[in-house]
Amino acid sequence: APCPINGLPIVRNISDLPQDNYGRPGLSHMTVAGSVLHGMKEVEIWLQTFAPGSETPIHRHSCEEVFVVLKGSGTLYLAETHGNFPGKPIEFPIFANSTIHIPINDAHQVKNTGHEDLQVLVIISRPPIKIFIYEDWFMPHTAARLKFPYYWDEQCIQESQKDEL
Amino acid sequence: APCPINGLPIVRNISDLPQDNYGRPGLSHMTVAGSVLHGMKEVEIWLQTFAPGSETPIHRHSCEEVFVVLKGSGTLYLAETHGNFPGKPIEFPIFANSTIHIPINDAHQVKNTGHEDLQVLVIISRPPIKIFIYEDWFMPHTAARLKFPYYWDEQCIQESQKDEL
Repeated sequence: APCPINGLPIVRNISDLPQDNYGRPGLSHMTVAGSVLHGMKEVEIWLQTFAPGSETPIHRHSCEEVFVVLKGSGTLYLAETHGNFPGKPIEFPIFANSTIHIPINDAHQVKNTGHEDLQVLVIISRPPIKIFIYEDWFMPHTAARLKFPYYWDEQCIQESQKDEL
Repeated sequence: APCPINGLPIVRNISDLPQDNYGRPGLSHMTVAGSVLHGMKEVEIWLQTFAPGSETPIHRHSCEEVFVVLKGSGTLYLAETHGNFPGKPIEFPIFANSTIHIPINDAHQVKNTGHEDLQVLVIISRPPIKIFIYEDWFMPHTAARLKFPYYWDEQCIQESQKDEL
């Protein structure tokens, strides 16, 4: 069952955990330890794999986020949020065995600009994630659209709401 | 400088980060992204390597903790905290590509019971960590000794206190 909160085993084999692209070609997302899925309250960990050319949307969130790049390479696009829209982002190469921290509320995007799969462990605080999505780097922050629950939290949040009906 | 909080680069090469055994033979600890060292407020990530036979102390903490085992194998010893002392722990084998979550405040210990290095990514909430150490599994919870700041946070906390003098 995708929402196995009670009785979560202490040790789990990551290879046995469900993964999905959630409608985004080139993505494989797995929630390793999460709030909606596993009852975590303060941290959530994902394992994400991006095929060459695939990318996250341009987005921001107010939680802390740290990446550990396990394999592959790519580019982080990051815009400082001083104006009322992100503006042209700064480009940072990311590579295997690198770590990245995203300043709170800065608009950013990760893209696999390499030739092999980019695999990252993503650690966030204050789960479940609340993501504001931008159509481009010049969209005003106030116009960015909140997507909550996010794709990989949707099913379990809907099921838990059904239980409450 | 070990306490490089201001101007922390967005992308860092993990191979360049300092590591140390902090007086514990068989341990190599690296704070990948931490509060005292890097200004994180809600999550902290360590990369730890245990030589065969080496182990953590028996300890508890009230923050959330998740392990991702990158390589090697070992044993997690975990005691449910229902009585007024931990008592005989349950033994869980841990292995490469497994993930472990430690229930809040449960006394636990990780040991490399394998024949090669055990390497783990450790994610905690509410950094910096406050650890209560037990001499054995039958020591009352109330007698467990608080070690704060913990070894890898000591130097930077002392330096920041000096700045305040």
